[in-house]
Amino acid sequence: MAAGGPPESRGGPAPVGDDAHLVERAERSETRLEGGFLHVVLDHVRLPDGRMATREYVRHPGAVAVLPILDDGRIVLVRQYRHPVGTILLELPAGKLDDNETVLACAMRELQEETGYTAREWARAGVFNNAAAYSTEGIEIWFARGLVPGAQQLDEGEFVEVCTLDEAELDALASAGGLPDMKTMIGLQWLQRWRNGQWPLDWVAVS
Amino acid sequence: MAAGGPPESRGGPAPVGDDAHLVERAERSETRLEGGFLHVVLDHVRLPDGRMATREYVRHPGAVAVLPILDDGRIVLVRQYRHPVGTILLELPAGKLDDNETVLACAMRELQEETGYTAREWARAGVFNNAAAYSTEGIEIWFARGLVPGAQQLDEGEFVEVCTLDEAELDALASAGGLPDMKTMIGLQWLQRWRNGQWPLDWVAVS
Repeated sequence: MAAGGPPESRGGPAPVGDDAHLVERAERSETRLEGGFLHVVLDHVRLPDGRMATREYVRHPGAVAVLPILDDGRIVLVRQYRHPVGTILLELPAGKLDDNETVLACAMRELQEETGYTAREWARAGVFNNAAAYSTEGIEIWFARGLVPGAQQLDEGEFVEVCTLDEAELDALASAGGLPDMKTMIGLQWLQRWRNGQWPLDWVAVS
Repeated sequence: MAAGGPPESRGGPAPVGDDAHLVERAERSETRLEGGFLHVVLDHVRLPDGRMATREYVRHPGAVAVLPILDDGRIVLVRQYRHPVGTILLELPAGKLDDNETVLACAMRELQEETGYTAREWARAGVFNNAAAYSTEGIEIWFARGLVPGAQQLDEGEFVEVCTLDEAELDALASAGGLPDMKTMIGLQWLQRWRNGQWPLDWVAVS
């Protein structure tokens, strides 16, 4: 990695030992909101220069998003209204981890609940931070194939429509601004790089 | 777009008029937290089936992320500690919109503050929702080129390290799980598709 702009550094993750000039340490934490849905905390942190600051953020259990591939290559997605952004988004099926649930178990549950599909093979792409400035959330993206259709099992008050698009349709949407959901953009990216033989997926069969 | 899973639909965005079976309508809103940093509201919404539900979420002013391209093709990024996720992330320079600030003005300001660089040409890739279940945030990604180095202008208590990587280095990091920041993954995706002549960027010169 080459050196560049004015304040120099190497790129990429490095052991924290090398990064004492960047790392903050929490000294105490208080609950700011214990909402029906959101849990907000305020931490008092020691900055690298020894001074104190506060960090207010959402404690999130983590989430999973699934990119389900039909045998003919089409992708199964969901359309749902997202009140905070006031619009219907086309998204990978996804949801939050339940207590004591493994990520793969969550992926299987959310795929089945939101789309009805079960899958014979699964592969983990990676885990991604979507709002690192104010949320602990990591979204782990899994691929699923060997899909078997079934009935949606939506929670009460959940309205989710299933649809299928092929890679070219998703790509055209993305380039035109029609795929604003970040996890879905990254799922498309990983799909294309995997199909081109560039990014890895290690499939495991489940029974 | 082909039909697929059990509950059928066409893909892609559609006018809300077609989507009355998905859309929620807010009937009243209350403030849940007016934090130093986070503003949380609780809306009471009318569901498509006529019942009521609540939606708790963060009101966010919106953000911008910048993908700055040096004349030799390398990309300028920043490394910073993100307390909510407890790690240092390699990210596109980014930040929240100030009151009454245009997105491009914010992009220019954040690029200069975090990296010192100013740019002669700018192009908008798109706007992306990173946490549509619980935040109004949209992150607009802009490309910058014709970079001129200068001095970082960090806020007090901000510790940001500049580094540069080329596309191949970023790609190798991404495929190995070393680029977990979502906006940065999408910036890389758009960079690669643009360089391949597939996704558009319309450059405008600024003086």
